[in-house]
Amino acid sequence: MQQSTKIRRLVSLFSRLPGVGEKTAQRYVLHLLTSDPEVARDLGRELGGLHDELRPCARCGNIAEVVPTEEPTVCDICKDPRRDTRLLCVVGRIHDLLAIERTGAMRGRYFVLGRLLSPLEGIGPEELPVPRLVARIADEGVTEVIVATPPSVDGEATALLLKRELAATGVTMTRIASGVPHGGDLEYADPITMGRALSGRQSL
Amino acid sequence: MQQSTKIRRLVSLFSRLPGVGEKTAQRYVLHLLTSDPEVARDLGRELGGLHDELRPCARCGNIAEVVPTEEPTVCDICKDPRRDTRLLCVVGRIHDLLAIERTGAMRGRYFVLGRLLSPLEGIGPEELPVPRLVARIADEGVTEVIVATPPSVDGEATALLLKRELAATGVTMTRIASGVPHGGDLEYADPITMGRALSGRQSL
Repeated sequence: MQQSTKIRRLVSLFSRLPGVGEKTAQRYVLHLLTSDPEVARDLGRELGGLHDELRPCARCGNIAEVVPTEEPTVCDICKDPRRDTRLLCVVGRIHDLLAIERTGAMRGRYFVLGRLLSPLEGIGPEELPVPRLVARIADEGVTEVIVATPPSVDGEATALLLKRELAATGVTMTRIASGVPHGGDLEYADPITMGRALSGRQSL
Repeated sequence: MQQSTKIRRLVSLFSRLPGVGEKTAQRYVLHLLTSDPEVARDLGRELGGLHDELRPCARCGNIAEVVPTEEPTVCDICKDPRRDTRLLCVVGRIHDLLAIERTGAMRGRYFVLGRLLSPLEGIGPEELPVPRLVARIADEGVTEVIVATPPSVDGEATALLLKRELAATGVTMTRIASGVPHGGDLEYADPITMGRALSGRQSL
């Protein structure tokens, strides 16, 4: 079958979602075509308005709902007066912020870098919003910065960069722990993870 | 974070796509939120018009582009005069039709059942479009029906039902082969597949 241009366009748009190849995109389109038309229409409408209703938080980079009377747009976490302003958690992506929020263990606020230092992808220090982070630490009287970038090459490089760049602020800097995950089997832990579990050992 | 209603709505809509759970749906939404707004807008627009521009083919059930001056809507395969009308391939879903078309080996036309017989899901014989299939065989002078439902319990049950229901038409009925797939290892073939490969053996 020569696929119709309409289908090809939709398949190529769906393929831009993370982890979606052409086959998966085609499955999505066929599913929507053979389902209740309301689903495609609703999804279409919601997507069309997505960027008008949601925007990055002007303070932390988290997703924030646009409130027409409020300018700049600030997210629920930054608005929440019960959050401890002295504690600031720096993450690479919004996904990571959400993962940390799910634990319910973070009582401070966040700062989303949006990207990690990555020499391989050509992302250098000047592409990270370090000046904004420094300004925020001063403005809000932050006393501890938790660096929650992932324990990967890029994540570690970013953590080291932040350590250097924030040294002058005098803030206490901590790094999330890396080691054998909960329920993980020591036998199957890779050598780097196992090494970190050892070097990061804590007193019992 | 209390997720905004907008995000929750979008996540629940994306979760209706096949194989998409809440986590994947959330990744899609975050990806779209942090990408060029054009992608979400384009996807939204295309999805909104999906069911106005495409419709099931009135003859075979394949996807057909709506042409305002043509009524009823008929797909490219049914319109193609080079296709052999005497050969009709019956499939369960449009996905299967597309998989067969990709081989380039089918020179006849198709009939999409839309569903398979499934006692477990409560889909009985009366829910299959058998009368429409019988009418089409008579109308178009079909001489061979290739039953290309999958080699699963439901697919086999559907094939047997069709064999019984189409007996009176006098049409020749064939079934696609089932056996060890190309490149497959005999060692890893499951016993049912291996049994079919043996019972379906052909002379060398």
